[in-house]
Amino acid sequence: MPDGDCLGSVAALGLSLEVLGKTVTLASPEPLPELYRFLPAADRFLIGSGALSGDYDTFVVLDCSVPDRLGPLRELLERNLMIVSIDHHASSYDFGSCTYIDTGAAATGEIIMDLLDLLGVSPRQEVAVCLYTAIATDTGSFRYQNTTPMTHRRVARLMELGIDVARLNVLLYDQKSLLHLRVLQAALQTLDLSPCGRVAWMSISRETLDSLGALEEHTDGLIDYVRSLKGVEVALFFREMVPGRWKVGLRSKGEVDVQRVAALFHGGGHVRAAGAVLEGEGDRIIKEVVAAVLSALSAG
Amino acid sequence: MPDGDCLGSVAALGLSLEVLGKTVTLASPEPLPELYRFLPAADRFLIGSGALSGDYDTFVVLDCSVPDRLGPLRELLERNLMIVSIDHHASSYDFGSCTYIDTGAAATGEIIMDLLDLLGVSPRQEVAVCLYTAIATDTGSFRYQNTTPMTHRRVARLMELGIDVARLNVLLYDQKSLLHLRVLQAALQTLDLSPCGRVAWMSISRETLDSLGALEEHTDGLIDYVRSLKGVEVALFFREMVPGRWKVGLRSKGEVDVQRVAALFHGGGHVRAAGAVLEGEGDRIIKEVVAAVLSALSAG
Repeated sequence: MPDGDCLGSVAALGLSLEVLGKTVTLASPEPLPELYRFLPAADRFLIGSGALSGDYDTFVVLDCSVPDRLGPLRELLERNLMIVSIDHHASSYDFGSCTYIDTGAAATGEIIMDLLDLLGVSPRQEVAVCLYTAIATDTGSFRYQNTTPMTHRRVARLMELGIDVARLNVLLYDQKSLLHLRVLQAALQTLDLSPCGRVAWMSISRETLDSLGALEEHTDGLIDYVRSLKGVEVALFFREMVPGRWKVGLRSKGEVDVQRVAALFHGGGHVRAAGAVLEGEGDRIIKEVVAAVLSALSAG
Repeated sequence: MPDGDCLGSVAALGLSLEVLGKTVTLASPEPLPELYRFLPAADRFLIGSGALSGDYDTFVVLDCSVPDRLGPLRELLERNLMIVSIDHHASSYDFGSCTYIDTGAAATGEIIMDLLDLLGVSPRQEVAVCLYTAIATDTGSFRYQNTTPMTHRRVARLMELGIDVARLNVLLYDQKSLLHLRVLQAALQTLDLSPCGRVAWMSISRETLDSLGALEEHTDGLIDYVRSLKGVEVALFFREMVPGRWKVGLRSKGEVDVQRVAALFHGGGHVRAAGAVLEGEGDRIIKEVVAAVLSALSAG
């Protein structure tokens, strides 16, 4: 699922390159999540293989750390195109001809904003909406570690272009469906803590999701409720993808490298956010993962 | 209950006046909420009448729009003191000798920051923590309408003083107790919408609160879940204070003046946020208030 930084950056750069007289095709490997359909250029995105029929000379890849994430668009890497990749993830892949990775940037949108300055294009209001979306979503509304003084200064400049930030934030955060809250309620019923209070988890079974008519997107962000608990070092969220197959998300507040815990179950990720897929019965899986986290906690 | 802007502003100004050689007493009408005990000067606050025994020549009142909110500290208004009041609320009371109200400021903390510039005091790191807390909490992490480009520029300056914003935000937002989430779960079970989808509400009974061992502070912010629903214009939250006595909170996204609805039930507030207290049986009260909101919606 493409996120706000990815889609906002792609739309912002695309619309700005058009101002410079370039012919631009916007593309996403997958349909845009409902949440981001308000972006000014949202209806212009070609989806997946729908973008492959064009005749391009340059392929610009934004906020994408591995080729697999390109989905059907990966085919474009094999054509004889100039490849430009811009990203802010430390583990980002070197796509070839022209790769720019700035891990100090809070969002790819920050790099795009600076690039527009270098190109001498002053962002139009609709571009400012895209860049604000990119930066605000990737910094958790300026709460995360990646937020810098320059992040705030860039956003001040975007606001001075006249964007309605309060309205944008309603579009980004106050568009929940009743189903989102029903799924939250069902997940909260399973909330549990280790006796030491440092590991907490919630889960949602296939049966519950089906009975509510809920999709994967309705479970987005539920792990943040677990993480918000005082004293919890590691938060876990278990979702039954298909009967007997569970995806676990792991979040650490810093003491434990959850990527190493996820690796025990053939998963991966980063120090503070990781995931894995496990087969079997829910209760047993939860016990196993919680035990592994507790053992990592006591080892650290 | 004093909020982050009030306590952050008081602590920031107090600590800075000490740098200028003033003798300062920090005071709050009520004990500091658990949430704000991390503030650098939190343990220095004298509470309520505990602050009345001092011999003062100036009484500085911050982020306080009406004298009633001073609680026991109101007595200081009757002494022969210089009264300085600084606030950003439009409806703020004129406390007398020296009142400064800037409704364009997102938080009283913004005014204090500018005042420190005028006084030639460069904020120390602990003052920056207080000012960040004041500004970030009153703008809903820079999401609300009151956020301006200058808000972001001020925060950039505060961050450049070396404060750990990610850690501060964990202290502000990731300190929930298990009880908070149990109360949320119980409230979500009551979530309901009008057939038109424009009014939504949740409630929590005295019996439920007592059975969970929950206090008023555990219901703080629950109305935001109701407001976050797509299509909802007015969000309501009903809390049974004592058996048969309910407090309703009303939040509007702009179409309805909820202060006028609250006034029908002898309550008050602002256009977008209001409240009232009603006596009677829960279901009947909910029906009455919802009907009044629906009628205001169709009239508007």
